[in-house]
Order: sequence, then structure tokens, then C-alpha cells
Amino acid sequence: MFEVEAKIRVQSLAAVRARLAELGAEDCGATRERDVYFNAPDRDFGKTDEALRVRYSAQEQARLTYKGPKEKGYGAKARTELSVAVDHGAAMEEILGKLGYVPVAEVNKKRHYFRLPGASIALDAVVGLGAFVEVEAAPELTPADAIAAVDRTVKTLGIPGDYITLSYLEMLLSKQATQ
Amino acid sequence: MFEVEAKIRVQSLAAVRARLAELGAEDCGATRERDVYFNAPDRDFGKTDEALRVRYSAQEQARLTYKGPKEKGYGAKARTELSVAVDHGAAMEEILGKLGYVPVAEVNKKRHYFRLPGASIALDAVVGLGAFVEVEAAPELTPADAIAAVDRTVKTLGIPGDYITLSYLEMLLSKQATQ
Repeated sequence: MFEVEAKIRVQSLAAVRARLAELGAEDCGATRERDVYFNAPDRDFGKTDEALRVRYSAQEQARLTYKGPKEKGYGAKARTELSVAVDHGAAMEEILGKLGYVPVAEVNKKRHYFRLPGASIALDAVVGLGAFVEVEAAPELTPADAIAAVDRTVKTLGIPGDYITLSYLEMLLSKQATQ
Repeated sequence: MFEVEAKIRVQSLAAVRARLAELGAEDCGATRERDVYFNAPDRDFGKTDEALRVRYSAQEQARLTYKGPKEKGYGAKARTELSVAVDHGAAMEEILGKLGYVPVAEVNKKRHYFRLPGASIALDAVVGLGAFVEVEAAPELTPADAIAAVDRTVKTLGIPGDYITLSYLEMLLSKQATQ
């Protein structure tokens, strides 16, 4: 799967939530997500711009997700994403440990999912980082249509601000490094 | 989990199946299993005596399994085994590929599971290798009790022959190397 998404920092999620209601967005429910990120034994994911994580969610089974390097030349963030649901997150973490992967950081957030035609929207309150809106294109779109859908949705939502290309993991690690 | 098991080559599985019926063993069903084994980017599992595989079964969800080095000093084979069920085996293989793991061999077999007190028994017809009986101790047993349970079960089944400490993967790779 090729993931196209935009992330924008907002002062308050309440205004975005109100706008979503106005637009008749589908409310797909809120959840808490805890992401445990790992680094590899044979390379530094920080340098290769890859990510490997186990996600624990209040709503679903645990998931193992790999994200490839971000692709250049898009305003929105685009990268390969591969994911499987696993029946036991702790055992998955143990297997990664045996293979030499090391947990490097945790991202904890409250996330509220919404859907508009062509895009899904997440309102995120991230522990230690603040409030963000993530707009992700529907997976069935071509890359060009996906980028257009993301840009259109951001405009419709009326969220000012630049697209942040850093992941929450990168933002947290960079915050830790400057503390 | 610590896995204790014995594997014995047999001429025919029919005699063992008859003996299991005599003993009133629980029939846990037959399945086909296809195991895809991977080697690591940072070490050679053949040398470290580890194994990583994705198993596809006619009966269950796909599983990712890691096996640690075989422990010395047991007649039966003993090693750490960690396993998770995944909702999509092909995606799991793709993630492993992105992480640098390379598929090295496939083991295909028909397997018929039975249970006796303290042990589970698998009758295996392995493509390219022949017929085998695997006796695995119940996971809740201590290592000492597990070894005793395996030895007792093998005796009860009346299967002559040495315990084979090689895995099917090792047997297949060694057969390929001598061809």
C-alpha cells in the first residue's frame, strides 16, 4: 500500500470537529493508540527513513506496521506502508527482540477518526507534542488523485498551516534530543 | 515458550495411527502446512541455529514463528519458540522482505494432529523427505517433566528409531546440498 497523508498542527481540535460535523463527515470512533517503535540490528531506521512499530489500540487487534522511506516531490507525505494484525502484540515484540530489533520510543495518543469522500481524517492529541489533524487519502486512489484528495480535504476543513512531513516519532525524538 | 519435542522417522504412518486409536488418543484433525523459511540480513540462521518462518495452514490463520537455537543436553529437541497469528501471511512476508529477510526454503507437509495426556503427536508426510512422527510435550510442563512426557509417549507409541534433532528445513537443505 502507498500511503499519502498530510499532517497539520492545530491549536484546538474542537473547531475541526465542528467543521467535520457541518460537512456531514462520518464519525468512525475514537480510540487510544500506543505505538512502540523499533530500530533495526543491520541499519539505522533514523538514517534510512524507515519505521517499524507495534501498535496497540483500544479498538482493534495489535498491528505490526512497516513504513518505507518518504518519497520526494510531494507536498503531502507519501510512503510505502505494510501492516498485519497480530493476535498477540507482546509476543510480536518478543520475536522482534530475538531478531535484534530494539524499542527506541513510544508514541501515545488519543485519536478520533472521521471519513469524508476520498479521505479519512484523524484528530490526534499526542502526549508530549500537542494537537494535530492527519488527512489520509483513500487507499484505492492513484497517487495523483490521492494528493488532490488530501489537498482538497485540507482546504475544505479550513485548517491553516504547513504540512508537517515529520512523523510523531521523529518529532518526539527531535524534542528529546534538544532537551 | 520452551518447546520440547522428539522427531522419529517411520516407514509408515498407518501403524502409528492404529496405535493412537488403540490408546484412545484425541484426533485433533489433519491439515496441510506450507512453511516459508527466511534468513536474516545481519546473521546466518543456519549458523546461529535459529529459524524464522511464515506458516500457511489449511486449518488456521497464517503464523509468524521464531525458533531459538536448540539447547544442548537433552535427548529430545528443546528450543525457545515464539509465535503470533497474523491476518495476512503475504503481507507478513512482504514486511520481512522490506526488513531484509530472504526466503530460503519451503517445507510442505500433510500433518495429522493427535493428543495424549502430556503430549501432542503429529503424523507428518513431508514432501521430499518422507514420513515422520513428532511428539511435543504439553507447553505447561516444566522442562524435566516435558522430556519425561515425550520419552514416555514415544515408548507407548512403540516407535523404534533414534530421535532426529535436525529440523525439516535442515534436512531439506542438507538433501539439496548433496544432490
